[in-house]
Amino acid sequence: MGSSVTLIPIEGMPEVTPGDDVGALIVEALARQRTPLQDRDVLVVTQKVVSKAEGRIVDLRTITPSARASDFARRWEKDARVVEVALAEAVRVVRMENGVLITETRHGFVCANSGVDGSNVGSASGDIVTLLPEDPDASARRIRDRVREAGAEVAVIVSDTFGRPWREGAGNVAIGVAGIEPLWDYRGQQDTDGRELHSTVIAVADELAAAAELVTNKLDRVPAAIVRGYAYKPSESGIAPVIRERAKDLFR
Amino acid sequence: MGSSVTLIPIEGMPEVTPGDDVGALIVEALARQRTPLQDRDVLVVTQKVVSKAEGRIVDLRTITPSARASDFARRWEKDARVVEVALAEAVRVVRMENGVLITETRHGFVCANSGVDGSNVGSASGDIVTLLPEDPDASARRIRDRVREAGAEVAVIVSDTFGRPWREGAGNVAIGVAGIEPLWDYRGQQDTDGRELHSTVIAVADELAAAAELVTNKLDRVPAAIVRGYAYKPSESGIAPVIRERAKDLFR
Repeated sequence: MGSSVTLIPIEGMPEVTPGDDVGALIVEALARQRTPLQDRDVLVVTQKVVSKAEGRIVDLRTITPSARASDFARRWEKDARVVEVALAEAVRVVRMENGVLITETRHGFVCANSGVDGSNVGSASGDIVTLLPEDPDASARRIRDRVREAGAEVAVIVSDTFGRPWREGAGNVAIGVAGIEPLWDYRGQQDTDGRELHSTVIAVADELAAAAELVTNKLDRVPAAIVRGYAYKPSESGIAPVIRERAKDLFR
Repeated sequence: MGSSVTLIPIEGMPEVTPGDDVGALIVEALARQRTPLQDRDVLVVTQKVVSKAEGRIVDLRTITPSARASDFARRWEKDARVVEVALAEAVRVVRMENGVLITETRHGFVCANSGVDGSNVGSASGDIVTLLPEDPDASARRIRDRVREAGAEVAVIVSDTFGRPWREGAGNVAIGVAGIEPLWDYRGQQDTDGRELHSTVIAVADELAAAAELVTNKLDRVPAAIVRGYAYKPSESGIAPVIRERAKDLFR
Protein backbone atom coordinates (compact mmCIF):
# COMPACT_ATOMS: atom_id res chain seq x y z
CA MET A 1 0.00 0.00 0.00
CA GLY A 2 1.30 3.46 -0.89
CA SER A 3 1.59 6.43 1.40
CA SER A 4 -1.87 7.15 2.65
CA VAL A 5 -2.98 10.41 4.19
CA THR A 6 -5.21 10.57 7.27
CA LEU A 7 -7.69 13.30 8.20
CA ILE A 8 -8.22 13.47 11.97
CA PRO A 9 -10.92 15.66 13.55
CA ILE A 10 -10.00 17.63 16.65
CA GLU A 11 -12.90 17.21 19.04
CA GLY A 12 -13.86 18.50 22.44
CA MET A 13 -12.77 22.09 21.81
CA PRO A 14 -14.42 24.52 24.22
CA GLU A 15 -16.42 27.52 23.02
CA VAL A 16 -13.74 30.03 21.96
CA THR A 17 -13.96 33.60 23.25
CA PRO A 18 -11.89 36.75 22.59
CA GLY A 19 -8.40 36.51 24.01
CA ASP A 20 -8.26 32.72 23.90
CA ASP A 21 -5.09 31.03 22.65
CA VAL A 22 -6.39 28.80 19.85
CA GLY A 23 -3.07 26.97 19.51
CA ALA A 24 -3.09 26.09 23.20
CA LEU A 25 -6.73 24.97 23.10
CA ILE A 26 -5.92 22.68 20.17
CA VAL A 27 -2.89 21.18 21.90
CA GLU A 28 -5.03 20.53 25.00
CA ALA A 29 -7.89 19.01 23.01
CA LEU A 30 -5.46 16.72 21.20
CA ALA A 31 -3.89 15.66 24.50
CA ARG A 32 -7.36 14.69 25.76
CA GLN A 33 -8.08 12.66 22.63
CA ARG A 34 -4.56 11.16 22.81
CA THR A 35 -3.61 12.31 19.32
CA PRO A 36 -0.62 14.61 19.86
CA LEU A 37 0.55 16.57 16.83
CA GLN A 38 3.54 15.09 15.03
CA ASP A 39 6.25 16.74 13.00
CA ARG A 40 5.07 17.43 9.43
CA ASP A 41 1.38 17.27 10.27
CA VAL A 42 -0.77 19.92 8.64
CA LEU A 43 -3.09 21.54 11.16
CA VAL A 44 -6.18 23.07 9.55
CA VAL A 45 -8.14 25.52 11.71
CA THR A 46 -11.43 27.02 10.55
CA GLN A 47 -11.78 30.79 10.41
CA LYS A 48 -14.59 31.10 12.93
CA VAL A 49 -12.59 30.10 16.00
CA VAL A 50 -9.58 32.13 14.88
CA SER A 51 -11.69 35.25 14.37
CA LYS A 52 -13.46 34.80 17.70
CA ALA A 53 -10.19 34.33 19.60
CA GLU A 54 -8.82 37.46 17.94
CA GLY A 55 -11.90 39.47 18.84
CA ARG A 56 -12.85 39.94 15.18
CA ILE A 57 -16.52 40.07 16.04
CA VAL A 58 -19.12 42.76 15.52
CA ASP A 59 -22.33 43.29 17.45
CA LEU A 60 -24.85 44.18 14.75
CA ARG A 61 -26.81 46.28 17.27
CA THR A 62 -23.99 48.85 17.00
CA ILE A 63 -24.30 49.13 13.19
CA THR A 64 -26.27 51.80 11.31
CA PRO A 65 -26.67 50.69 7.71
CA SER A 66 -25.98 53.10 4.86
CA ALA A 67 -28.65 53.80 2.25
CA ARG A 68 -26.82 51.51 -0.18
CA ALA A 69 -26.84 48.62 2.30
CA SER A 70 -30.46 49.26 3.28
CA ASP A 71 -31.67 49.38 -0.32
CA PHE A 72 -29.93 46.13 -1.24
CA ALA A 73 -31.10 44.40 1.94
CA ARG A 74 -34.71 45.49 1.50
CA ARG A 75 -34.80 44.33 -2.10
CA TRP A 76 -33.37 40.89 -1.37
CA GLU A 77 -34.60 40.25 2.19
CA LYS A 78 -31.16 40.45 3.77
CA ASP A 79 -30.05 41.92 7.11
CA ALA A 80 -28.99 45.48 6.19
CA ARG A 81 -26.53 45.54 9.09
CA VAL A 82 -24.68 42.50 7.74
CA VAL A 83 -24.56 44.09 4.28
CA GLU A 84 -23.17 47.26 5.86
CA VAL A 85 -20.42 45.37 7.72
CA ALA A 86 -19.56 43.43 4.54
CA LEU A 87 -19.30 46.66 2.51
CA ALA A 88 -17.12 48.23 5.23
CA GLU A 89 -14.77 45.22 5.08
CA ALA A 90 -14.46 45.42 1.28
CA VAL A 91 -11.97 47.35 -0.81
CA ARG A 92 -14.09 46.73 -3.89
CA VAL A 93 -17.50 45.38 -4.82
CA VAL A 94 -17.18 42.74 -7.54
CA ARG A 95 -20.90 41.94 -7.86
CA MET A 96 -23.92 43.28 -5.98
CA GLU A 97 -26.99 41.87 -7.69
CA ASN A 98 -29.53 39.04 -7.45
CA GLY A 99 -29.19 39.18 -3.66
CA VAL A 100 -25.53 38.24 -3.90
CA LEU A 101 -22.73 40.48 -2.65
CA ILE A 102 -19.29 39.46 -3.89
CA THR A 103 -16.45 41.67 -2.70
CA GLU A 104 -12.70 41.90 -2.70
CA THR A 105 -11.31 42.08 0.82
CA ARG A 106 -8.24 43.97 1.99
CA HIS A 107 -6.38 40.66 1.87
CA GLY A 108 -7.22 40.28 -1.82
CA PHE A 109 -9.76 37.50 -1.38
CA VAL A 110 -12.84 37.62 -3.57
CA CYS A 111 -15.73 36.09 -1.67
CA ALA A 112 -19.33 36.55 -0.56
CA ASN A 113 -20.01 39.29 2.01
CA SER A 114 -16.29 39.95 2.60
CA GLY A 115 -16.25 36.75 4.68
CA VAL A 116 -18.64 38.24 7.26
CA ASP A 117 -20.51 35.34 8.85
CA GLY A 118 -23.17 34.94 11.49
CA SER A 119 -23.35 31.18 12.05
CA ASN A 120 -21.79 29.40 15.03
CA VAL A 121 -20.59 32.53 16.77
CA GLY A 122 -22.02 31.72 20.19
CA SER A 123 -24.96 34.09 20.03
CA ALA A 124 -28.51 32.78 20.04
CA SER A 125 -29.82 36.28 19.28
CA GLY A 126 -28.17 36.32 15.86
CA ASP A 127 -26.74 39.79 16.47
CA ILE A 128 -23.07 38.79 16.41
CA VAL A 129 -21.03 38.21 13.25
CA THR A 130 -17.37 37.43 12.70
CA LEU A 131 -14.99 39.23 10.36
CA LEU A 132 -12.03 37.55 8.68
CA PRO A 133 -8.81 37.75 10.72
CA GLU A 134 -6.85 40.97 10.12
CA ASP A 135 -3.84 38.96 8.92
CA PRO A 136 -4.68 35.27 8.52
CA ASP A 137 -1.04 34.37 7.80
CA ALA A 138 -0.07 35.89 11.16
CA SER A 139 -2.93 33.94 12.78
CA ALA A 140 -1.55 30.74 11.25
CA ARG A 141 1.99 31.59 12.38
CA ARG A 142 0.87 32.22 15.95
CA ILE A 143 -0.82 28.82 16.09
CA ARG A 144 2.21 27.18 14.48
CA ASP A 145 4.54 28.79 17.02
CA ARG A 146 2.33 27.68 19.91
CA VAL A 147 2.33 24.10 18.61
CA ARG A 148 6.10 24.27 18.16
CA GLU A 149 6.43 25.07 21.88
CA ALA A 150 4.48 21.88 22.51
CA GLY A 151 7.16 20.03 20.57
CA ALA A 152 5.87 19.54 17.00
CA GLU A 153 6.95 21.26 13.81
CA VAL A 154 3.77 21.51 11.77
CA ALA A 155 2.27 23.57 8.97
CA VAL A 156 -0.88 25.51 9.78
CA ILE A 157 -3.72 26.50 7.45
CA VAL A 158 -6.54 28.83 8.46
CA SER A 159 -9.52 27.86 6.29
CA ASP A 160 -12.81 29.46 5.38
CA THR A 161 -15.84 28.34 3.39
CA PHE A 162 -16.09 30.17 0.06
CA GLY A 163 -18.58 29.81 -2.75
CA ARG A 164 -17.47 29.97 -6.37
CA PRO A 165 -18.82 30.89 -9.77
CA TRP A 166 -20.38 28.29 -12.07
CA ARG A 167 -20.81 25.57 -9.46
CA GLU A 168 -23.31 25.22 -6.64
CA GLY A 169 -22.07 24.52 -3.14
CA ALA A 170 -19.25 26.07 -1.21
CA GLY A 171 -15.96 24.53 -0.18
CA ASN A 172 -13.16 25.24 2.23
CA VAL A 173 -10.10 27.11 1.00
CA ALA A 174 -6.98 28.44 2.72
CA ILE A 175 -7.05 32.09 3.79
CA GLY A 176 -3.81 32.00 5.77
CA VAL A 177 -0.87 29.60 5.93
CA ALA A 178 2.30 29.12 7.95
CA GLY A 179 5.17 26.80 7.13
CA ILE A 180 3.77 25.46 3.85
CA GLU A 181 4.04 26.38 0.20
CA PRO A 182 0.38 26.88 -0.78
CA LEU A 183 0.92 26.09 -4.48
CA TRP A 184 2.59 22.98 -5.87
CA ASP A 185 4.24 23.86 -9.11
CA TYR A 186 4.69 21.00 -11.57
CA ARG A 187 5.86 23.30 -14.35
CA GLY A 188 9.17 22.25 -15.81
CA GLN A 189 8.78 18.72 -14.50
CA GLN A 190 8.05 15.92 -16.91
CA ASP A 191 4.96 13.76 -17.06
CA THR A 192 5.03 9.98 -17.54
CA ASP A 193 5.43 10.46 -21.29
CA GLY A 194 8.54 12.55 -20.82
CA ARG A 195 6.69 15.68 -21.91
CA GLU A 196 7.18 18.82 -19.91
CA LEU A 197 4.10 19.86 -17.97
CA HIS A 198 3.36 23.39 -18.98
CA SER A 199 0.60 24.69 -16.86
CA THR A 200 -0.13 22.56 -13.86
CA VAL A 201 0.07 24.45 -10.62
CA ILE A 202 -2.00 22.80 -7.91
CA ALA A 203 -3.45 24.82 -5.05
CA VAL A 204 -2.47 22.28 -2.40
CA ALA A 205 -3.30 24.51 0.58
CA ASP A 206 -6.85 24.81 -0.75
CA GLU A 207 -7.02 21.05 -1.30
CA LEU A 208 -5.79 20.44 2.25
CA ALA A 209 -8.44 22.86 3.54
CA ALA A 210 -11.11 21.08 1.49
CA ALA A 211 -9.94 17.67 2.72
CA ALA A 212 -10.07 18.83 6.34
CA GLU A 213 -13.67 19.95 5.86
CA LEU A 214 -14.60 16.29 5.45
CA VAL A 215 -13.96 15.80 9.20
CA THR A 216 -14.69 19.23 10.63
CA ASN A 217 -18.36 19.93 10.98
CA LYS A 218 -20.61 22.93 11.03
CA LEU A 219 -23.18 21.42 13.38
CA ASP A 220 -20.96 19.85 16.02
CA ARG A 221 -18.03 21.62 17.56
CA VAL A 222 -15.17 20.37 15.38
CA PRO A 223 -13.37 23.53 14.26
CA ALA A 224 -10.01 21.98 13.38
CA ALA A 225 -8.41 18.88 11.92
CA ILE A 226 -5.04 17.28 11.34
CA VAL A 227 -3.92 16.13 7.90
CA ARG A 228 -1.26 13.50 8.55
CA GLY A 229 1.02 11.91 5.96
CA TYR A 230 1.00 14.60 3.27
CA ALA A 231 4.52 15.56 2.13
CA TYR A 232 4.07 19.32 1.81
CA LYS A 233 6.81 21.74 0.83
CA PRO A 234 7.87 23.95 3.75
CA SER A 235 7.75 27.67 2.95
CA GLU A 236 7.24 31.00 4.64
CA SER A 237 5.50 32.53 1.61
CA GLY A 238 2.16 32.90 3.33
CA ILE A 239 -1.02 32.90 1.23
CA ALA A 240 0.14 35.64 -1.19
CA PRO A 241 1.07 33.30 -4.09
CA VAL A 242 -2.55 32.09 -4.21
CA ILE A 243 -4.01 35.54 -4.75
CA ARG A 244 -4.29 36.25 -8.46
CA GLU A 245 -3.25 39.75 -9.47
CA ARG A 246 -6.20 41.85 -10.46
CA ALA A 247 -4.66 42.59 -13.86
CA LYS A 248 -4.43 38.88 -14.67
CA ASP A 249 -7.95 38.11 -13.52
CA LEU A 250 -10.67 37.85 -16.17
CA PHE A 251 -13.56 37.86 -13.70
CA ARG A 252 -13.16 41.06 -11.68
CA MET B 1 -10.17 9.92 18.68
CA GLY B 2 -13.05 10.85 16.40
CA SER B 3 -13.85 9.26 13.08
CA SER B 4 -10.88 9.84 10.89
CA VAL B 5 -10.91 9.62 7.10
CA THR B 6 -8.12 7.94 5.13
CA LEU B 7 -6.95 8.75 1.61
CA ILE B 8 -5.38 5.73 -0.07
CA PRO B 9 -3.57 5.97 -3.42
CA ILE B 10 -4.20 3.23 -5.97
CA GLU B 11 -0.82 2.34 -7.38
CA GLY B 12 0.53 0.03 -10.05
CA MET B 13 -2.18 0.80 -12.60
CA PRO B 14 -1.09 -0.12 -16.13
CA GLU B 15 -1.16 2.38 -18.99
CA VAL B 16 -4.83 2.64 -19.92
CA THR B 17 -5.82 2.31 -23.59
CA PRO B 18 -9.15 2.61 -25.43
CA GLY B 19 -11.52 -0.24 -24.60
CA ASP B 20 -9.99 -0.94 -21.19
CA ASP B 21 -12.29 -1.57 -18.26
CA VAL B 22 -11.13 1.01 -15.71
CA GLY B 23 -13.21 -0.51 -12.92
CA ALA B 24 -11.62 -3.91 -13.48
CA LEU B 25 -8.10 -2.42 -13.65
CA ILE B 26 -8.72 -0.67 -10.33
CA VAL B 27 -10.03 -3.82 -8.66
CA GLU B 28 -6.95 -5.72 -9.89
CA ALA B 29 -4.51 -3.01 -8.77
CA LEU B 30 -6.12 -2.96 -5.33
CA ALA B 31 -5.89 -6.74 -5.08
CA ARG B 32 -2.16 -6.49 -5.80
CA GLN B 33 -1.66 -3.82 -3.12
CA ARG B 34 -3.89 -5.84 -0.76
CA THR B 35 -6.33 -2.97 -0.19
CA PRO B 36 -9.67 -4.30 -1.43
CA LEU B 37 -12.48 -1.80 -1.68
CA GLN B 38 -14.91 -1.83 1.23
CA ASP B 39 -18.57 -0.94 1.39
CA ARG B 40 -19.05 2.84 1.69
CA ASP B 41 -15.62 3.71 0.33
CA VAL B 42 -15.52 6.61 -2.10
CA LEU B 43 -13.49 5.73 -5.18
CA VAL B 44 -12.10 8.80 -6.94
CA VAL B 45 -10.85 8.27 -10.50
CA THR B 46 -9.14 11.02 -12.45
CA GLN B 47 -10.55 12.03 -15.81
CA LYS B 48 -7.51 11.13 -17.90
CA VAL B 49 -7.76 7.36 -17.48
CA VAL B 50 -11.53 7.41 -17.88
CA SER B 51 -11.30 9.39 -21.12
CA LYS B 52 -8.56 7.16 -22.50
CA ALA B 53 -10.47 3.98 -21.68
CA GLU B 54 -13.54 5.43 -23.40
CA GLY B 55 -11.57 6.40 -26.49
CA ARG B 56 -12.17 10.10 -25.89
CA ILE B 57 -8.87 11.02 -27.49
CA VAL B 58 -8.04 13.13 -30.51
CA ASP B 59 -4.97 12.94 -32.71
CA LEU B 60 -4.11 16.59 -33.34
CA ARG B 61 -2.60 15.67 -36.71
CA THR B 62 -6.17 15.17 -37.95
CA ILE B 63 -7.27 18.68 -36.94
CA THR B 64 -7.43 21.70 -39.25
CA PRO B 65 -7.77 24.82 -37.11
CA SER B 66 -10.32 27.49 -37.98
CA ALA B 67 -9.23 31.09 -38.53
CA ARG B 68 -10.52 31.96 -35.06
CA ALA B 69 -8.45 29.23 -33.42
CA SER B 70 -5.39 30.11 -35.50
CA ASP B 71 -5.57 33.82 -34.71
CA PHE B 72 -5.90 33.22 -30.98
CA ALA B 73 -3.14 30.61 -30.97
CA ARG B 74 -0.75 32.80 -32.94
CA ARG B 75 -1.28 35.78 -30.68
CA TRP B 76 -0.74 33.82 -27.46
CA GLU B 77 1.70 31.14 -28.58
CA LYS B 78 -0.75 28.27 -28.20
CA ASP B 79 -1.25 25.15 -30.31
CA ALA B 80 -4.00 26.17 -32.75
CA ARG B 81 -5.14 22.56 -33.05
CA VAL B 82 -5.79 22.34 -29.29
CA VAL B 83 -7.70 25.63 -29.43
CA GLU B 84 -9.75 24.24 -32.32
CA VAL B 85 -10.62 21.05 -30.43
CA ALA B 86 -11.51 23.09 -27.32
CA LEU B 87 -13.81 25.36 -29.34
CA ALA B 88 -15.45 22.34 -30.96
CA GLU B 89 -16.13 20.85 -27.52
CA ALA B 90 -17.71 24.08 -26.24
CA VAL B 91 -21.32 25.17 -26.37
CA ARG B 92 -20.27 28.70 -25.43
CA VAL B 93 -17.12 30.74 -25.01
CA VAL B 94 -17.09 32.46 -21.60
CA ARG B 95 -13.73 34.24 -21.99
CA MET B 96 -11.19 34.18 -24.82
CA GLU B 97 -8.55 36.75 -23.97
CA ASN B 98 -5.11 37.10 -22.41
CA GLY B 99 -4.22 33.67 -23.78
CA VAL B 100 -6.96 32.09 -21.67
CA LEU B 101 -9.87 30.19 -23.18
CA ILE B 102 -12.70 29.55 -20.72
CA THR B 103 -15.67 27.71 -22.15
CA GLU B 104 -18.91 26.09 -21.15
CA THR B 105 -19.02 22.43 -22.12
CA ARG B 106 -22.04 20.44 -23.21
CA HIS B 107 -22.17 19.06 -19.66
CA GLY B 108 -22.51 22.60 -18.28
CA PHE B 109 -19.00 22.78 -16.81
CA VAL B 110 -17.19 26.08 -17.14
CA CYS B 111 -13.47 25.39 -17.41
CA ALA B 112 -10.32 26.10 -19.38
CA ASN B 113 -10.12 24.68 -22.91
CA SER B 114 -13.33 22.63 -22.49
CA GLY B 115 -11.27 20.20 -20.43
CA VAL B 116 -9.10 19.26 -23.43
CA ASP B 117 -5.75 18.14 -22.05
CA GLY B 118 -2.49 16.90 -23.53
CA SER B 119 -0.50 15.75 -20.49
CA ASN B 120 -0.06 12.12 -19.50
CA VAL B 121 -1.88 10.68 -22.47
CA GLY B 122 0.76 8.17 -23.46
CA SER B 123 2.13 10.02 -26.43
CA ALA B 124 5.69 11.31 -26.46
CA SER B 125 4.97 13.24 -29.67
CA GLY B 126 2.50 15.52 -27.94
CA ASP B 127 -0.04 15.07 -30.72
CA ILE B 128 -2.69 13.32 -28.62
CA VAL B 129 -5.16 15.07 -26.35
CA THR B 130 -8.05 13.80 -24.27
CA LEU B 131 -11.59 15.15 -24.22
CA LEU B 132 -13.88 14.98 -21.20
CA PRO B 133 -16.00 11.82 -21.07
CA GLU B 134 -19.26 12.10 -23.04
CA ASP B 135 -21.27 11.43 -19.87
CA PRO B 136 -19.07 11.44 -16.75
CA ASP B 137 -21.96 10.27 -14.53
CA ALA B 138 -22.36 7.22 -16.77
CA SER B 139 -18.58 6.68 -16.56
CA ALA B 140 -18.81 6.77 -12.76
CA ARG B 141 -21.78 4.40 -12.75
CA ARG B 142 -19.97 1.88 -14.97
CA ILE B 143 -17.00 1.84 -12.59
CA ARG B 144 -19.33 1.60 -9.59
CA ASP B 145 -21.17 -1.34 -11.16
CA ARG B 146 -17.90 -3.11 -11.93
CA VAL B 147 -16.73 -2.67 -8.33
CA ARG B 148 -20.10 -3.93 -7.10
CA GLU B 149 -19.54 -7.17 -9.04
CA ALA B 150 -16.28 -7.46 -7.10
CA GLY B 151 -18.32 -7.31 -3.91
CA ALA B 152 -18.19 -3.73 -2.63
CA GLU B 153 -20.91 -1.07 -2.63
CA VAL B 154 -19.00 2.17 -3.14
CA ALA B 155 -19.57 5.68 -4.43
CA VAL B 156 -17.54 6.74 -7.45
CA ILE B 157 -16.34 10.22 -8.39
CA VAL B 158 -14.70 11.05 -11.71
CA SER B 159 -12.47 14.07 -11.04
CA ASP B 160 -10.71 16.63 -13.19
CA THR B 161 -8.34 19.49 -12.47
CA PHE B 162 -10.01 22.88 -12.96
CA GLY B 163 -8.67 26.38 -12.43
CA ARG B 164 -10.84 29.07 -10.93
CA PRO B 165 -11.20 32.85 -10.96
CA TRP B 166 -9.49 35.02 -8.36
CA ARG B 167 -7.10 32.39 -7.04
CA GLU B 168 -3.94 30.96 -8.57
CA GLY B 169 -3.54 27.22 -8.78
CA ALA B 170 -5.95 24.58 -9.94
CA GLY B 171 -7.70 21.93 -7.90
CA ASN B 172 -9.58 18.73 -8.48
CA VAL B 173 -13.35 18.81 -8.68
CA ALA B 174 -16.00 16.21 -9.45
CA ILE B 175 -17.22 16.01 -13.05
CA GLY B 176 -19.25 12.83 -12.62
CA VAL B 177 -20.59 10.92 -9.63
CA ALA B 178 -22.39 7.65 -8.91
CA GLY B 179 -24.01 6.66 -5.66
CA ILE B 180 -23.32 9.88 -3.77
CA GLU B 181 -25.14 13.14 -3.18
CA PRO B 182 -22.61 15.71 -4.46
CA LEU B 183 -23.90 18.55 -2.26
CA TRP B 184 -24.36 18.42 1.51
CA ASP B 185 -27.20 20.71 2.43
CA TYR B 186 -27.09 22.11 5.96
CA ARG B 187 -30.00 24.46 5.29
CA GLY B 188 -32.79 24.08 7.80
CA GLN B 189 -30.47 22.42 10.30
CA GLN B 190 -29.40 24.31 13.41
CA ASP B 191 -25.91 25.38 14.33
CA THR B 192 -24.45 25.04 17.85
CA ASP B 193 -26.23 28.23 18.90
CA GLY B 194 -29.61 26.84 17.89
CA ARG B 195 -29.81 29.22 14.93
CA GLU B 196 -30.94 27.87 11.63
CA LEU B 197 -28.18 27.73 9.03
CA HIS B 198 -29.46 29.61 6.04
CA SER B 199 -27.04 29.25 3.27
CA THR B 200 -24.51 26.54 3.85
CA VAL B 201 -24.46 23.98 1.10
CA ILE B 202 -21.12 22.20 0.91
CA ALA B 203 -19.85 20.73 -2.35
CA VAL B 204 -18.70 17.49 -0.76
CA ALA B 205 -18.03 15.68 -4.05
CA ASP B 206 -15.62 18.46 -4.99
CA GLU B 207 -14.00 18.28 -1.55
CA LEU B 208 -13.62 14.52 -1.90
CA ALA B 209 -12.04 15.02 -5.32
CA ALA B 210 -9.68 17.65 -3.89
CA ALA B 211 -8.77 15.40 -0.97
CA ALA B 212 -8.00 12.51 -3.33
CA GLU B 213 -5.63 14.73 -5.30
CA LEU B 214 -3.37 14.79 -2.24
CA VAL B 215 -2.49 11.14 -2.96
CA THR B 216 -2.93 10.88 -6.72
CA ASN B 217 -0.04 12.30 -8.63
CA LYS B 218 0.54 13.82 -12.02
CA LEU B 219 4.13 12.59 -12.36
CA ASP B 220 3.81 9.00 -11.21
CA ARG B 221 1.06 6.70 -12.36
CA VAL B 222 -1.50 7.15 -9.58
CA PRO B 223 -4.76 7.95 -11.36
CA ALA B 224 -7.17 6.94 -8.60
CA ALA B 225 -7.60 6.91 -4.84
CA ILE B 226 -9.91 5.62 -2.14
CA VAL B 227 -11.45 7.91 0.46
CA ARG B 228 -12.31 5.66 3.39
CA GLY B 229 -14.35 6.61 6.44
CA TYR B 230 -16.38 9.48 5.05
CA ALA B 231 -20.12 9.13 5.75
CA TYR B 232 -21.51 10.34 2.44
CA LYS B 233 -25.19 10.45 1.56
CA PRO B 234 -26.12 7.87 -1.09
CA SER B 235 -27.91 9.34 -4.09
CA GLU B 236 -28.42 8.74 -7.77
CA SER B 237 -28.62 12.45 -8.60
CA GLY B 238 -25.42 12.50 -10.62
CA ILE B 239 -23.45 15.74 -10.89
CA ALA B 240 -26.41 17.89 -12.06
CA PRO B 241 -27.09 19.56 -8.67
CA VAL B 242 -23.57 21.02 -8.74
CA ILE B 243 -24.04 22.82 -12.04
CA ARG B 244 -25.31 26.33 -11.44
CA GLU B 245 -28.07 27.44 -13.79
CA ARG B 246 -26.82 30.00 -16.23
CA ALA B 247 -29.55 32.46 -15.17
CA LYS B 248 -28.37 32.33 -11.53
CA ASP B 249 -24.69 32.74 -12.41
CA LEU B 250 -23.15 36.21 -12.12
CA PHE B 251 -19.94 35.32 -13.95
CA ARG B 252 -21.01 33.99 -17.33
